[in-house]
Amino acid sequence: MKQKKINIGLFGFGTVGKGLYDVLQRIQPQNVKIVSVCVEDITKKRDADIPFTNRADDIFNNKDINFIVELINDAEAAYKIVKRALVAGLPVVSGNKRMLAYHIMELIKLQEQYNTPLLYDASACGSIPVIRNLEEYYDNDLLISIKGILNGSSNFILSKIFNEGMNYDDSLRLAQELGFAESNPTFDIEGWDSLFKLIIITVHAFGVYVPPKDVLNVGIGHMNSYDIQFANEKGRRIKLVGSAEKMDDKLVLSVMPQLISRQKYIYSVEDEFNGVVIKGLFYYKQFMFGQGAGGYPTGSAVLSDITAQLYDYKYEYKKLNNPHHPHYTTDITFRIYFRFTNEEDQSLLDFESTSERYLSANYKYVVGNISLAQLIEKVDMLREKDVFIAAYPHD
Amino acid sequence: MKQKKINIGLFGFGTVGKGLYDVLQRIQPQNVKIVSVCVEDITKKRDADIPFTNRADDIFNNKDINFIVELINDAEAAYKIVKRALVAGLPVVSGNKRMLAYHIMELIKLQEQYNTPLLYDASACGSIPVIRNLEEYYDNDLLISIKGILNGSSNFILSKIFNEGMNYDDSLRLAQELGFAESNPTFDIEGWDSLFKLIIITVHAFGVYVPPKDVLNVGIGHMNSYDIQFANEKGRRIKLVGSAEKMDDKLVLSVMPQLISRQKYIYSVEDEFNGVVIKGLFYYKQFMFGQGAGGYPTGSAVLSDITAQLYDYKYEYKKLNNPHHPHYTTDITFRIYFRFTNEEDQSLLDFESTSERYLSANYKYVVGNISLAQLIEKVDMLREKDVFIAAYPHD
Repeated sequence: MKQKKINIGLFGFGTVGKGLYDVLQRIQPQNVKIVSVCVEDITKKRDADIPFTNRADDIFNNKDINFIVELINDAEAAYKIVKRALVAGLPVVSGNKRMLAYHIMELIKLQEQYNTPLLYDASACGSIPVIRNLEEYYDNDLLISIKGILNGSSNFILSKIFNEGMNYDDSLRLAQELGFAESNPTFDIEGWDSLFKLIIITVHAFGVYVPPKDVLNVGIGHMNSYDIQFANEKGRRIKLVGSAEKMDDKLVLSVMPQLISRQKYIYSVEDEFNGVVIKGLFYYKQFMFGQGAGGYPTGSAVLSDITAQLYDYKYEYKKLNNPHHPHYTTDITFRIYFRFTNEEDQSLLDFESTSERYLSANYKYVVGNISLAQLIEKVDMLREKDVFIAAYPHD
Repeated sequence: MKQKKINIGLFGFGTVGKGLYDVLQRIQPQNVKIVSVCVEDITKKRDADIPFTNRADDIFNNKDINFIVELINDAEAAYKIVKRALVAGLPVVSGNKRMLAYHIMELIKLQEQYNTPLLYDASACGSIPVIRNLEEYYDNDLLISIKGILNGSSNFILSKIFNEGMNYDDSLRLAQELGFAESNPTFDIEGWDSLFKLIIITVHAFGVYVPPKDVLNVGIGHMNSYDIQFANEKGRRIKLVGSAEKMDDKLVLSVMPQLISRQKYIYSVEDEFNGVVIKGLFYYKQFMFGQGAGGYPTGSAVLSDITAQLYDYKYEYKKLNNPHHPHYTTDITFRIYFRFTNEEDQSLLDFESTSERYLSANYKYVVGNISLAQLIEKVDMLREKDVFIAAYPHD
């Protein structure tokens, strides 16, 4: 075994940073230790026996440190830390999906330029090794689609609603009490967390980068009891799904609630779990399932990224470097369920065709076909209205 | 992208070999082609436009060939091919689990000695990347156990019995008709296929090699309608489970039917699918699920092993090289269900304690605790009797 030692300068000591610390305390690896931690508020009492600082320079100038782990919430600050580490030739592990979703292409170039690895498997689906598998195993042209439940908080809420009949507000409150959702749950509930993960996954799955603003992102914040009733009547569950699907040489991406039928694998992904279905030309479907969030699962995913460096592992970005990758398109039609409260909102969307239309005093909906391009164009406007949209696949 | 070209000399053109050929025909990779195929019977008509030979020398002496893929059934012949390839410095991919289960330690030494890689992800669970994940991702001390349904044929039969109420003979016949079970189904039904996979998985999961003869292997061939009735009454299903579990610094292995309760992930692994649950200290459980057999899923797994060579991938055997690995033990007690037809067979096993005992004219069973060591000692003798054993975990 190589005698390489990893001496970590850690940024951030929130849920995941503390999770990593606890994991390391428990397994006591010989080759990996945290040398110093940089946090915003140095006065806060923390249950950890390591030196804290609030100056990034203290980390970067510390000659004992040969490895950076970035686990802070602030995406712009995270970007600066990661960039500085790469330029300084310090291998770095990051868990910041928002930062990565915006800056991944530049960070890939920097990795190459400075021959310094950046790993971030923990950023997408916590303890499920999605990125690593897309990099290493699903590295050829057989991959057709990757779809899944990428956000644990919203899935927890949806599970409580569909399994235990809780209402939306109570289930959100419970998620917050249990620490699965932030006091401001927008990031999770409105799909942003899923969207950023999908962007990262798509780079490794199909070698295609699409900026977050170009991808449809619809959340579950506007769902009401009629929508839940509709799903139940159809024998389906509403799940917040991130999807990247190749169709011939085109690639379609979306994050949106979907009415999922019972025979789908993700129908049964419950509570705060994540589940990803990988579909290939010859291997039918693969399903990977596990804890997608939380200090320990994510901390141990961060540790897998760290220990990979003991063996000089780096992402190869094989598909980005492959000339044959599909082209992102929004020129595609799919069937949606569109619920609106005010009758005039019926005309907000221009359906290509409709197959159901229901109007009553309190509950009104249309089921019909609509282009993805139109939804992307109108999604910001729709967020301001009392309407709910969910994909309603035929299968 | 590297311009490396892989020119394959293929041994075997059965289900998987033909599957690999079809997959390559479909995706037409620029860097990978089959140059020649060695088969036993060269007169057999085959639907493939490549040169066939029946002499291994024609493959090994062909200067165009720089890569060996071994997909034959005969374990001893496979061993010779793989060994010859490694010694000749030709990277090799093998799908022969029986051969690997017996010879893996020698083949690891040869890989090192000749600096030539041998990959065999396709040998365990077909298209599910179990070995690759154990190598790359679950590479630290957090791993507690890996358990799963490792054989598609026996699982297909059990699914038909427990979901559709078919009897054992009919479901076996159906599995044979559909090509999920061989005309001689012993290899699958009696657990050998699962056992060999478990041996290989354990090397990568825990860095421990145990010879097949030292591991308990009980199949489902003796199961009868009373056993099925017992499982149904207890709200459980019988599944054939391979299990490797770390307990402190000890390691326990077994392949046997288990009475699985509804809340377990593998309860719902149906038909010819495989499913593996990976349990870790901090990430709770991960579940990987997919097609474990068949020409196309296994052929595409073989292709993943082949294309990994475009990037010089090899197994590092990290855990074998780690001095801290658990020690294999059989000194462990577990609860089993033991059904016998002849009353005198009651005394075949020496239970430490029993919690249920049922005796009627046709159906007799004992539920009790017994040591793994005793079961291993007596398993060959039990195979000759009209008895059935299944683990009956408390959870």
